[in-house]
Amino acid sequence: MPRFDLPADELRTYRPEVAEPVDFDAFWQSTLAESRAVAEPPRLTRVDSPLSLVEVYDVEFSGYAGDPVRGWFLVPADAAGPLPTVVEYNGYGGGRGLPHERLQWAASGYAHFFMDTRGQGSAWGTGGSTPDPHGTGASFPGFMTRGIDDPADYYYRRVFTDAVLAVDAVRSLDVVDASRVAVTGGSQGGGIAIAAAGLVEGLVGAMPDVPFLSHFERAVGLTDRDPYNEIVRYLAVHRDAAETVFSTLAYFDGIHFSKRATAPSLVSVALMDPICPPSTVYAAANHHGVGAEVVEYAFNEHEGGQGLHWQRQAAWLAARLAG
Amino acid sequence: MPRFDLPADELRTYRPEVAEPVDFDAFWQSTLAESRAVAEPPRLTRVDSPLSLVEVYDVEFSGYAGDPVRGWFLVPADAAGPLPTVVEYNGYGGGRGLPHERLQWAASGYAHFFMDTRGQGSAWGTGGSTPDPHGTGASFPGFMTRGIDDPADYYYRRVFTDAVLAVDAVRSLDVVDASRVAVTGGSQGGGIAIAAAGLVEGLVGAMPDVPFLSHFERAVGLTDRDPYNEIVRYLAVHRDAAETVFSTLAYFDGIHFSKRATAPSLVSVALMDPICPPSTVYAAANHHGVGAEVVEYAFNEHEGGQGLHWQRQAAWLAARLAG
Amino acid sequence: MPRFDLPADELRTYRPEVAEPVDFDAFWQSTLAESRAVAEPPRLTRVDSPLSLVEVYDVEFSGYAGDPVRGWFLVPADAAGPLPTVVEYNGYGGGRGLPHERLQWAASGYAHFFMDTRGQGSAWGTGGSTPDPHGTGASFPGFMTRGIDDPADYYYRRVFTDAVLAVDAVRSLDVVDASRVAVTGGSQGGGIAIAAAGLVEGLVGAMPDVPFLSHFERAVGLTDRDPYNEIVRYLAVHRDAAETVFSTLAYFDGIHFSKRATAPSLVSVALMDPICPPSTVYAAANHHGVGAEVVEYAFNEHEGGQGLHWQRQAAWLAARLAG
Amino acid sequence: MPRFDLPADELRTYRPEVAEPVDFDAFWQSTLAESRAVAEPPRLTRVDSPLSLVEVYDVEFSGYAGDPVRGWFLVPADAAGPLPTVVEYNGYGGGRGLPHERLQWAASGYAHFFMDTRGQGSAWGTGGSTPDPHGTGASFPGFMTRGIDDPADYYYRRVFTDAVLAVDAVRSLDVVDASRVAVTGGSQGGGIAIAAAGLVEGLVGAMPDVPFLSHFERAVGLTDRDPYNEIVRYLAVHRDAAETVFSTLAYFDGIHFSKRATAPSLVSVALMDPICPPSTVYAAANHHGVGAEVVEYAFNEHEGGQGLHWQRQAAWLAARLAG
Amino acid sequence: MPRFDLPADELRTYRPEVAEPVDFDAFWQSTLAESRAVAEPPRLTRVDSPLSLVEVYDVEFSGYAGDPVRGWFLVPADAAGPLPTVVEYNGYGGGRGLPHERLQWAASGYAHFFMDTRGQGSAWGTGGSTPDPHGTGASFPGFMTRGIDDPADYYYRRVFTDAVLAVDAVRSLDVVDASRVAVTGGSQGGGIAIAAAGLVEGLVGAMPDVPFLSHFERAVGLTDRDPYNEIVRYLAVHRDAAETVFSTLAYFDGIHFSKRATAPSLVSVALMDPICPPSTVYAAANHHGVGAEVVEYAFNEHEGGQGLHWQRQAAWLAARLAG
Amino acid sequence: MPRFDLPADELRTYRPEVAEPVDFDAFWQSTLAESRAVAEPPRLTRVDSPLSLVEVYDVEFSGYAGDPVRGWFLVPADAAGPLPTVVEYNGYGGGRGLPHERLQWAASGYAHFFMDTRGQGSAWGTGGSTPDPHGTGASFPGFMTRGIDDPADYYYRRVFTDAVLAVDAVRSLDVVDASRVAVTGGSQGGGIAIAAAGLVEGLVGAMPDVPFLSHFERAVGLTDRDPYNEIVRYLAVHRDAAETVFSTLAYFDGIHFSKRATAPSLVSVALMDPICPPSTVYAAANHHGVGAEVVEYAFNEHEGGQGLHWQRQAAWLAARLAG
Repeated sequence: MPRFDLPADELRTYRPEVAEPVDFDAFWQSTLAESRAVAEPPRLTRVDSPLSLVEVYDVEFSGYAGDPVRGWFLVPADAAGPLPTVVEYNGYGGGRGLPHERLQWAASGYAHFFMDTRGQGSAWGTGGSTPDPHGTGASFPGFMTRGIDDPADYYYRRVFTDAVLAVDAVRSLDVVDASRVAVTGGSQGGGIAIAAAGLVEGLVGAMPDVPFLSHFERAVGLTDRDPYNEIVRYLAVHRDAAETVFSTLAYFDGIHFSKRATAPSLVSVALMDPICPPSTVYAAANHHGVGAEVVEYAFNEHEGGQGLHWQRQAAWLAARLAG
Repeated sequence: MPRFDLPADELRTYRPEVAEPVDFDAFWQSTLAESRAVAEPPRLTRVDSPLSLVEVYDVEFSGYAGDPVRGWFLVPADAAGPLPTVVEYNGYGGGRGLPHERLQWAASGYAHFFMDTRGQGSAWGTGGSTPDPHGTGASFPGFMTRGIDDPADYYYRRVFTDAVLAVDAVRSLDVVDASRVAVTGGSQGGGIAIAAAGLVEGLVGAMPDVPFLSHFERAVGLTDRDPYNEIVRYLAVHRDAAETVFSTLAYFDGIHFSKRATAPSLVSVALMDPICPPSTVYAAANHHGVGAEVVEYAFNEHEGGQGLHWQRQAAWLAARLAG
Repeated sequence: MPRFDLPADELRTYRPEVAEPVDFDAFWQSTLAESRAVAEPPRLTRVDSPLSLVEVYDVEFSGYAGDPVRGWFLVPADAAGPLPTVVEYNGYGGGRGLPHERLQWAASGYAHFFMDTRGQGSAWGTGGSTPDPHGTGASFPGFMTRGIDDPADYYYRRVFTDAVLAVDAVRSLDVVDASRVAVTGGSQGGGIAIAAAGLVEGLVGAMPDVPFLSHFERAVGLTDRDPYNEIVRYLAVHRDAAETVFSTLAYFDGIHFSKRATAPSLVSVALMDPICPPSTVYAAANHHGVGAEVVEYAFNEHEGGQGLHWQRQAAWLAARLAG
Repeated sequence: MPRFDLPADELRTYRPEVAEPVDFDAFWQSTLAESRAVAEPPRLTRVDSPLSLVEVYDVEFSGYAGDPVRGWFLVPADAAGPLPTVVEYNGYGGGRGLPHERLQWAASGYAHFFMDTRGQGSAWGTGGSTPDPHGTGASFPGFMTRGIDDPADYYYRRVFTDAVLAVDAVRSLDVVDASRVAVTGGSQGGGIAIAAAGLVEGLVGAMPDVPFLSHFERAVGLTDRDPYNEIVRYLAVHRDAAETVFSTLAYFDGIHFSKRATAPSLVSVALMDPICPPSTVYAAANHHGVGAEVVEYAFNEHEGGQGLHWQRQAAWLAARLAG
Repeated sequence: MPRFDLPADELRTYRPEVAEPVDFDAFWQSTLAESRAVAEPPRLTRVDSPLSLVEVYDVEFSGYAGDPVRGWFLVPADAAGPLPTVVEYNGYGGGRGLPHERLQWAASGYAHFFMDTRGQGSAWGTGGSTPDPHGTGASFPGFMTRGIDDPADYYYRRVFTDAVLAVDAVRSLDVVDASRVAVTGGSQGGGIAIAAAGLVEGLVGAMPDVPFLSHFERAVGLTDRDPYNEIVRYLAVHRDAAETVFSTLAYFDGIHFSKRATAPSLVSVALMDPICPPSTVYAAANHHGVGAEVVEYAFNEHEGGQGLHWQRQAAWLAARLAG
Repeated sequence: MPRFDLPADELRTYRPEVAEPVDFDAFWQSTLAESRAVAEPPRLTRVDSPLSLVEVYDVEFSGYAGDPVRGWFLVPADAAGPLPTVVEYNGYGGGRGLPHERLQWAASGYAHFFMDTRGQGSAWGTGGSTPDPHGTGASFPGFMTRGIDDPADYYYRRVFTDAVLAVDAVRSLDVVDASRVAVTGGSQGGGIAIAAAGLVEGLVGAMPDVPFLSHFERAVGLTDRDPYNEIVRYLAVHRDAAETVFSTLAYFDGIHFSKRATAPSLVSVALMDPICPPSTVYAAANHHGVGAEVVEYAFNEHEGGQGLHWQRQAAWLAARLAG
């Protein structure tokens, strides 16, 4: 049935206790430190485009282990910085695509950085440009189980590190006001935004939209839809691996990042979302470090609020910056 | 199988002879004349939005029979016209949505008008605002069979008339250079663009993307996907109505409009498109009055070229205007 | 799972409190009064058919706003009236079809009137003949959301009025015993029968079969099957419209009509019905004004009891008339 | 695609040469002779029903090997015979159901006999009452492969024999005019009607509707839908059995029965029928012994012409009887 | 959702009270006695095969009512008996196939008998060779409803009797150590193993794997997957037959056999199994006469533990035999 | 439809001309030479198992670039070598699983080596143990598009090299008769076997079963099923990559390997196979260097001949060895 998860009133107060690894902070501190140690300054290349109102730059910055990661950087033409800036992460399977595909933030006067997701970018849209140069053990097709037998090897260790270093890179640019950077993204991009917001200091806000990658022990088996279901299928083959798998995932659970967030957050949740079930979204939002504002879309599936929600994000962010 | 239609080399020369009604031109001349006779000047209302680089207007213009039709009109902020202008029509089931959802043309320096499709706007996206105040006989759910027993009552008579009068309305605006107006749209919007290009004089170009509404006698029964299949299901109930139905559809076939086109056209076609089969697209393109340039997407379904195709459209239109 | 709704013992006592509009009765009184004011006497045309045991008439009567509505009227050949009479409404998407398709009541000695549903009749069967001459705002394909932003414009305002005026029309015929008229129908036809039974005085009984159109707030989102799901999909686009939509639907909820029923009722319910979930059926039945008898089909989906249930209806109605 | 079979103009002349067993006639002569030798007179039991215009009888007659087979016999109340009579066979999986479910022929003044199909009657509708007391070898679920390794054991040997003896039984009744008996049925019932028409002398006509059980070598593997596909799945397991299976089926192919028909026939075919592909229907019709009239439903799947087709049957049969 | 049944902790203690027929034991005693009375000694035929390490015998033994039933008997080449022996039953729709398809037990030093399931063997795999010479009343395609209106006629009465007499037959062989016979099987084979273990004395163990045929009143309607759903579909047609059907099934419920088991058991259960829901498996296991050890596969559907579970079975059985 | 590919008689002579890269042989010579240069001797570890008739060894050998690759090596217990040996490759997504899962060859007196497929082993079965330590560019989930923009980086370069070095490793063992080694495998394993047979000298035979990885230009777009369809979906995103992709795939096409084969081959093909369409299998078989014997399964999908086909393989290989 469309309303398959908890009733709406239970969702709103759903705040499960989920154990976190004792070395969670140490794991991430060392991970980030190691990658920051080998990072080089971002390289921006101006790109020709029909977009006369916006300047477009092809960016390459140092991600996890110094791996080159790509993204698009857009600024209003002839803008005098420093500008408030939005860093955006993408949904599962998509790549950074083409620069004219996401113009709202730049058309609203922001600098906008859209990060490619390593290895992804071939499932929908117009493609990605960032390889993931790290091999993997036996994994189920997709990205959810790459390296899942060890937090050090897990795919999202690299992606979340990329996400944090994307903020570092953006903040290093003259046109960017480093004190007014927000992170956002939908679905996987929302999950990455939650992680970034838990790992980066001094953000002005985070706006995860129908976020993925949260409350794995509930999500895995609650829905039969990928990507969470990739983990079910992996465990259906690796029948003795559940403990190992969930131990790894504990280092990547949005709940733990959400607790550590220091910037306000605007979260969206769709109550009929079969891909990112609403209880998993609320689990992260209700644990937020400084309180998250949740916007509900009662009759939507994973598409959530779409363009309507962007309006709410734009208003919320403008108020944050004005405040 | 994904390649279900004719082989690629046959597609490229597919140019079927399809009979047209003897009074095709008379039908459309009188239809347009009657509606133009009751048209009032468009009303534009400036809309607040976060889009600091673009001015947004909510437009109401007179469509078929003087019915009010809505649309969004976007121009670069502080633009000194007259500007080259793109009029865009929407895909099946969608509404005009929200003004920030389609920014490419305005961000590229064009005036851009996006027309709502009457009665539609509730199947996907963020909604529409234009009623269809005309009742209907017994019809299959959807829009394809509304009034299909008589060309005078058929739903697309009203929609195509709206499309033509949208160009009239846009041309009446000071900021628009009436001699440099192009029409475009994807899927149903592409079909409407073909119709508009066959009915409007003096366009600078037409850019139908994976267009619908062409070569009905082949399309109906070739694919089992809606919207063409709505007609199959109607005929499965109204078992004696085939002759009547195809007589009506003959007034709305993209082939006949394409023959009458006087402006160059850039058409896209996806060779695995199960919704708008490639042979039906080529049938219209290969009959084009002054020759249509076709861009093939060999491994795509109905999504076609997406953002990549917009780049090609932008380059093509810029060349047209420069030429 | 097949048993997706409440357990059987909870269903049997399920009687939710559902708020009704304060002007519910006023709304329907004025609606009916206005349409009755412009009604003309029904016109019957004898139709040739192979059915030598039954006389067939094509009927046109005045429905909502005087709109002409069609139906088939069958009586046993050479019957001396006045006869007990069954008025029947149809399921979603169907039309009145052909007169020989529903012979049970006439073959059992009843007069039988089968009403066409305006605008429908093109989704299955052999067709309908009644247009819906009223236009509509932006609506999702289907009939559930036509005019759903205002009770005055809602599609079922017109249909329920047609249903009541069908009884008026039938009662005006000499061969009909106006004091012995029952209403029936399956699915949508059952929902219409519940409405008619709540709005018409002096019926001898009502026999809704797996009725639709009841307890909308539970139904919408409980099932992922149309027609209830048409409303979900509408609300997924019109994300701010839920309050308006449910305010409109409150004027059309079978629960409120059932409360007002003055004639006994025989209701069927299928416990695995994914289209008209059993809890929504019981919600109406358990609120019935004078008590409804419920027949359960424990292992059926929406087909319910089919021919077996007609036997139960025939026995129940005969007992009612004998009583 | 909906039009998956041959183009319409090829269908109309499709008349494949299909080899028949040399002992085809001998097989059926001995089969019928053996069963007729043990047949007893039919037993009719008057059944109470609400159907005041029609008398209903529960019939048990001797089928294959003397096995008791059931059916419903309906005659207009108080009819003075002898009456023209229609013998009808049922679709796959269905049983004779309840007597009020098929009233058209009796309401039109015919005697009507509806035969139960042995062993079937549990897949849809309201049930059957005739066991198949003969065991079976390893078979795929369903009826298509029961005893398929030997014509003597094949399930349809028993069913076709039942069908012929049903005509014998009906003709023995006083109220029936034995010289004016027609056979009919839809889908499997149509296939049985073709077989009966090839095996019974002196019928006034046959009216198979979208008939099944014809041109097995083409049908098996042309469609992925049951029941033909039951044979595919059997052969997918019994990989060495194809020759045996098709040797058996050759005794039951509608083409061979159609050739032997001596009474005129009215056949329906649906051009988008994925269950009984149109080429298999035309194969039988185009081989008909005295010429079959074919009614095409161009946009229908297996539902064919439904109630509209019954009108055509009724007119055709009346003309036959009048002629 | 994948976790559709009870939560894991409730499953582990789920032990429903299910009424059993008062004459359950009498029914089975007389059933077995009658068939044993007409049993003849098994006939073994040595079969050539490439399997040089294993001797293969084609076995025919007397099953229910003396009907011949086939199986494969494999022993290590040149083995000096008496050997511990595993008797195995097959899953739904499969046949005994080919002797080299199941080599684990023989390759581990056991004698291994794999029984064909009468009438089955045509739905997957490489076929079966055992007819079911008993006819049937109206039944839904498949085997679940054959003879379901009377325990004496029910299909599984014959199958379970075959299973017991298979053990009798195997025990009569010189190479078999009659005191060290275990039974096993997956899915339907697991259900048969439970039945055999409840009806046979002196087994050394039973190893049902994701067993079927248990706790019918819960299973029927809990899952929409065959084979349990065959019963739902039968009852959807035979709407008055539920009491009769469940009365019959009560003689075949694994719970009652499990209670009577005298040998230890190793049961597997898959917590996401939509075909044999885990609660129905636990219902039997938790009622086991001498305690059953349950192995859970938390993320598997009906495939359960596959090869991994065989390792656990082999270790468990070796320990049993060593103990 | 089930018979979706070419008619059977066209299939049997289907032998398309497919261009091969001019440096095909050079590419593979250097690839193999480089990996052989860094190969170390295989390491075998005896594994405890219940399989008393068979000795089991866990093998690690040097594959592509010296990467460690795992496999199971089984020999009849106490076998005096050298033995004829079968090297087997696995189907897509599977791992080497557990050693008792494939016993036929060892039970028939052969040494048997079953190779793990790097990176795979998590989609079905009981798992794999071989990582693929090489990273990848943007790829569609699955393995088909990993590194597809360059033959040097393509995933199957590594897998095919592993396959060849597996034969090297096996031949180095004392118990193996290096002159009597055959290769086999189903689906992907069949495609790998074809590649190995084209790259390895002196094999005694190759037995690819329903092989994958052949005639890519036809396969890609002929079927909508993975894994071939992974390439379609990649190309649907990377719309300009078709030429590059097919240039890469040309180095991995089974047709080119088949041409180079020097040992006889027994190939199976299933005529209704939607995953490895029969024309793509015949394309390779009909180009075989010394002639391939093809076994057709006319009514099977991708399961092909299953256990029946193993019998044919066993007989064919025995005859080869005897010859």
